[in-house]
Amino acid sequence: MTVARTIGDYLIQKLYAHDVRHVFGVPGDYVLSFFHKLESGDLQVVNTCDEQGAGFAADAYARINGLGVVCVTYCVGGLKVANSTAQAFAEKSPVVVISGAPGTNERIKSPLLHHKVRDFDTQLKIFEQITVASTILDNPQTACREIDRVIDAALQHKRPVYIELPRNMVSITAVPYYLPQEIPLPRDNNVLNEALLEATEIINASVKPAIIAGIELHRYGLQDEFVQFIEETHIPVASTPLSKSVISEHHPKYMGIYEGAIGCEKVREYIESSDCLILMGTFMTDINLGMFTAHLDQGKSIYATSEKVYIHYHTYEDVSLSAFLKGLLNGRINRCQPAESPHPEHPQSSQPVPGKKITIKYLYQYLNSFIGRNTVIIADTGDAMFAAMDMTIHKETKFLSTAYYASMGFAVPASLGVQLADPTLRPLVLVGDGAFQMTGMELSTSARYQLSPIVIVLNNGGYGTERPMLDGHFNDVKSWEYGCIPDIIKSGRGFDIKTEDQLEEALQLSSQYTKDICILNVQIDADDKSLSLERMTKAFAKYV
Amino acid sequence: MTVARTIGDYLIQKLYAHDVRHVFGVPGDYVLSFFHKLESGDLQVVNTCDEQGAGFAADAYARINGLGVVCVTYCVGGLKVANSTAQAFAEKSPVVVISGAPGTNERIKSPLLHHKVRDFDTQLKIFEQITVASTILDNPQTACREIDRVIDAALQHKRPVYIELPRNMVSITAVPYYLPQEIPLPRDNNVLNEALLEATEIINASVKPAIIAGIELHRYGLQDEFVQFIEETHIPVASTPLSKSVISEHHPKYMGIYEGAIGCEKVREYIESSDCLILMGTFMTDINLGMFTAHLDQGKSIYATSEKVYIHYHTYEDVSLSAFLKGLLNGRINRCQPAESPHPEHPQSSQPVPGKKITIKYLYQYLNSFIGRNTVIIADTGDAMFAAMDMTIHKETKFLSTAYYASMGFAVPASLGVQLADPTLRPLVLVGDGAFQMTGMELSTSARYQLSPIVIVLNNGGYGTERPMLDGHFNDVKSWEYGCIPDIIKSGRGFDIKTEDQLEEALQLSSQYTKDICILNVQIDADDKSLSLERMTKAFAKYV
Repeated sequence: MTVARTIGDYLIQKLYAHDVRHVFGVPGDYVLSFFHKLESGDLQVVNTCDEQGAGFAADAYARINGLGVVCVTYCVGGLKVANSTAQAFAEKSPVVVISGAPGTNERIKSPLLHHKVRDFDTQLKIFEQITVASTILDNPQTACREIDRVIDAALQHKRPVYIELPRNMVSITAVPYYLPQEIPLPRDNNVLNEALLEATEIINASVKPAIIAGIELHRYGLQDEFVQFIEETHIPVASTPLSKSVISEHHPKYMGIYEGAIGCEKVREYIESSDCLILMGTFMTDINLGMFTAHLDQGKSIYATSEKVYIHYHTYEDVSLSAFLKGLLNGRINRCQPAESPHPEHPQSSQPVPGKKITIKYLYQYLNSFIGRNTVIIADTGDAMFAAMDMTIHKETKFLSTAYYASMGFAVPASLGVQLADPTLRPLVLVGDGAFQMTGMELSTSARYQLSPIVIVLNNGGYGTERPMLDGHFNDVKSWEYGCIPDIIKSGRGFDIKTEDQLEEALQLSSQYTKDICILNVQIDADDKSLSLERMTKAFAKYV
Repeated sequence: MTVARTIGDYLIQKLYAHDVRHVFGVPGDYVLSFFHKLESGDLQVVNTCDEQGAGFAADAYARINGLGVVCVTYCVGGLKVANSTAQAFAEKSPVVVISGAPGTNERIKSPLLHHKVRDFDTQLKIFEQITVASTILDNPQTACREIDRVIDAALQHKRPVYIELPRNMVSITAVPYYLPQEIPLPRDNNVLNEALLEATEIINASVKPAIIAGIELHRYGLQDEFVQFIEETHIPVASTPLSKSVISEHHPKYMGIYEGAIGCEKVREYIESSDCLILMGTFMTDINLGMFTAHLDQGKSIYATSEKVYIHYHTYEDVSLSAFLKGLLNGRINRCQPAESPHPEHPQSSQPVPGKKITIKYLYQYLNSFIGRNTVIIADTGDAMFAAMDMTIHKETKFLSTAYYASMGFAVPASLGVQLADPTLRPLVLVGDGAFQMTGMELSTSARYQLSPIVIVLNNGGYGTERPMLDGHFNDVKSWEYGCIPDIIKSGRGFDIKTEDQLEEALQLSSQYTKDICILNVQIDADDKSLSLERMTKAFAKYV
C-alpha cells in the first residue's frame, strides 16, 4: 500500500486496513473511475450479474470477515441494493455501500443528468433510513475524516453505512487531518460494576440458570469468550434460529434451538422453567420467539445487548455485551451444579433406498451426515431454513441465514461472499425454487470466480411457506430445469434428484467435484414440508 | 364489480375503474390476504420471478395503459422495487406501488416483526422520496379518501405513488365518504390566454419554426392533438431519444431525432438555426441533449411542460401542456411555408450474405425491415437503445426505452407489461448481455402467461457502453448460452446467431412461432458498436 494521496486511495486504504480484500458490485459511468482505481489496487473487484447479488454477497462477506463492501453506480445501481442494505441493518451486518455519483461540478443548476430521480440527494435521503451513518465526499478538506467517521460507525454498530463518491472527487488530493490527541477520560466503571455485581449474585443464587445465546456474540467476535464462560460455569445453552451455530452444536452444554412453543419441547421446558435466564445478545424477534409463543419471564431474566443490560425490570445504560461478558468471566460465577439439561438429537442418516421418492425429511437427514467440517450451510428463507434448524452444525458460525429480515434470494449470492471471505469453506446452499428464481443465476458469478458452492434447490413448485397459510395460484412458481443451468453458464455440474439413491450419488460426485459449482434439482412434493415449518406456519397463519 | 365493502375491495375497484386489469408482484405473508382478494376478483395477478421484474413490468404497463400496479410484501418486497419506482418517477410513469405490511394490531410496542428494518415507517419514508403521494391505510374512516387522493395524484402527475396496506385492514369495512359538492370556481383563463396570444404571435412572425416533441405528449395522451397540430401548421418536428416514436417516423413533417452534436447533423442544423423553437413536453436531460452538446437558444424558444409554459425568458405558471396545445389548435397559427426540412433516412435492408459475420450495423438494418405494424420495440440501456435510434418506427408509441433514467435490466420484464396491456402487440426486445443477466430470466414469466416476445441478446461479452469510456475486467460479462434458456424454462425457442443468414432464418422462424418466446443469442465482436453509441460515449467519456 502506498501513502494515500487521493480521496479514492484513502477510501481503499481504509477498507484494506480493516481486512477487506474484495468489493462486490456492478460498474456504471458515475463510478467507472473508482472501479478503475480498485482494479489497479489491492482490492479485488467481484462483478455480479445484478446489483442485488452484490448487495447480498457483501452482507455475507461482512458476516464472515467483519466488514463487507458493495460498490455501485448512482441510483440505478444504488437503489437496487436498498433491500440488501436494509437486511444488513436489521440483522446487524457491517456493510459499506459505496455509490458513485455525478461530479460536484456537474450538479450546478441541477440539470437532468441521467440516473437522477428527484434531487441530487434523493439517494442519500433513502440510505439515511437504512444505515447508521452516511456521507457525501464532496469536500477534500473533510473527506478523510468523513471516511473514518462512517466506516468506524459500521464497525462499532455492526450495521451498514453509505458513502457517496462524486466522480470528480475520486482523484482529488485528500487533505490529511489530525485528530487532536485525545486525553483519556477517567473511565466510569460504576455502572458496569454494579451490573456485574447484581448479575453475579442473581446467577449464583439460582438453581437452574440457562442461557439463550444470540447473534450479537457472533457479530461482536465474542464466541471464544462465550465458550470459555460456558466451560467455566457449566450453564446450559440454547441458541435461536438467527443465531444457530453461534456455539458448536456438539458442545456438551448445548441444548438446541429455543423457539417458544413451536420448537423443541425439551428445550422450551428447560428455558421457560429456569429461575435465571441469561439472554446474551439475543434478538427478540417474532421468528426467534416462535411467533410470540415464547413465555419468558422478564422478572427472572438478565438480558445483555450490544448497548445496554437489563436485569429484571431495570436497565444499566451503556454497558456493552462485550464488557459485560468479559466482566462476568473475570468475576466469581459459581460452577453450575450438574443438572439434567436436554441435548439436541443429532439426526441419524439412513441408508438410501433405491428408487424411493425423496422427501424433505430424508434430504435433511442425509445432508446432516454429508456435511463436513469445512461445510458452511447457507439457508434461504422458507423451508430451506426451517428444515435446517434440526441439522447439527459442527463448528461455530458455519450456518448463515436471514432468520429475522427473511429476504428471499439471499443464499446463492451469499455463497459468493462467504467463500471469498474464507476460501477454506465450501458452501452448501439450501434454497427453495421461488428464492432461486430471484437471484440463482448469480451462480454464473460463482463460476466466473472459480468458486464451488453445492446448491440444493428444493423444487416443490411454489412458495412452500405460504401455501399452508393461504393458498392460490399466486403461490405457484414455474417449473425450471435447474439441473441444466450449467449448460447456460458453461460451468459446473447439474443433477436431477427424484429418489434417495440419486441424492446419495449426486452428493458423492459433488464432493469429489471440488473446483466448480454443483446444482442439485431436488424434486419434492408440493405438500411435503418439515415439521419445523409446519409448526411455524401454523403460528404464522393466525396473523394472515 | 360489486359494491365496495372493504378497504381491499375499494382499492381494487378504484384500480379497475382506471382500466387496470393486471397486477404484477410477488406475494409474502403480509400481503397474502390481499393477493387472495385479487385472485378472486377482476384483476389478474401476474407473478414475476423477482420483485424487480414486477416493478419494471408495472412501469411498462403504465406507459401503455395509463396506470400500472406492482404489489409486494413489506420491505423485503417493497425495497426491491425502490429502483423501478425511481425510474417511474424520473420518466413520468404512473405506477401504484401497493405494499402489504404488519397489521396495525401487531405494531403495538414496536416488536421486532420479521421484515422490519428500523421503524415501522422506514419503508414509507423511503417511498416518500420517490413518489408524488403516499399513504398508510390504517384508518377505515379515511381509507377510501386516501386511496382516491393517492391514485388521483398518480394520474395527474404521471408519477408513482405508494400505498401501504396493513394486513388487518384488507377486510375491514371501509367507511364511505362524501365529498362536499364542489362549487366550480370561475376559471381564470387570463394566464393561458396571454400565453397563447404571445406564442401565436411569435410563431406566426417566424420564418423557420421547428418543434421538438417530448415524451409528455405521450404521457398525457396528447398524440392525436399533436398530429393534428402538425398537419394544420406544417411545422417540422424532431423527437428525442426518450420520446422516439411519439410521432410516426413516416410522418412527412418528421425530421428525425435531435441529440445535439452527437445526433443527425441535418436535424441539428435545422433545429439550432430555427428562429422559433417550440419544445412540447420535452425532458431537457443530458442524453436528450446529447450530453449537453445541444445549442438551444432560450431567447428564441417556447417551452411547454405539463406544469408551466416558458416563452423566451419569462414563465406562465400553471399552464399545462394539454391546455396550451389545445389552445394553439383552436387558435390562428398560420400554415408554415413549405421549407426544406430534413427527412430521416430509413435504413435499407441488405440481403444477408451466407456465412458473413454479423455486425451491429447489419443487425439493426435487418431488424428495421423485419419489424411490422404490430411490433413494439423495447430497448434496454446501452447500444441496444443507442443503435435503435436510427430504426424507423411505424406508428406512435411503438418504441419504449428508459433514455433518461437508464436503468439496466428494464427491457425483458417491460415486455410482460407491454404485451399484457396490449395483446395485439408483439414485443421485440433489444437487450445487451449485461442487462439480460440482471433480469432476463423473467422470460420464464412471459412463458408462464403465454406471452411471446422476441428477445435479441446483443452478446458482446461485456458492458459495451462503458468500454469506450474506461475499460477493465470490470466491464466483462461472463459468456452465457442464451439460446439454451428455453431448455431451463421449458418453453420457447432459442437461436444462436453468428452470421447474417442465421439472423434471417431465425427471425423468419420467430415470426411464425407466435405463441411462445423466442430468444436470439446474437454474437457480435466486443468492439463492434453503432455510430450512435460511438458519438455518445465520446461525449460521455469527458466526464468519467
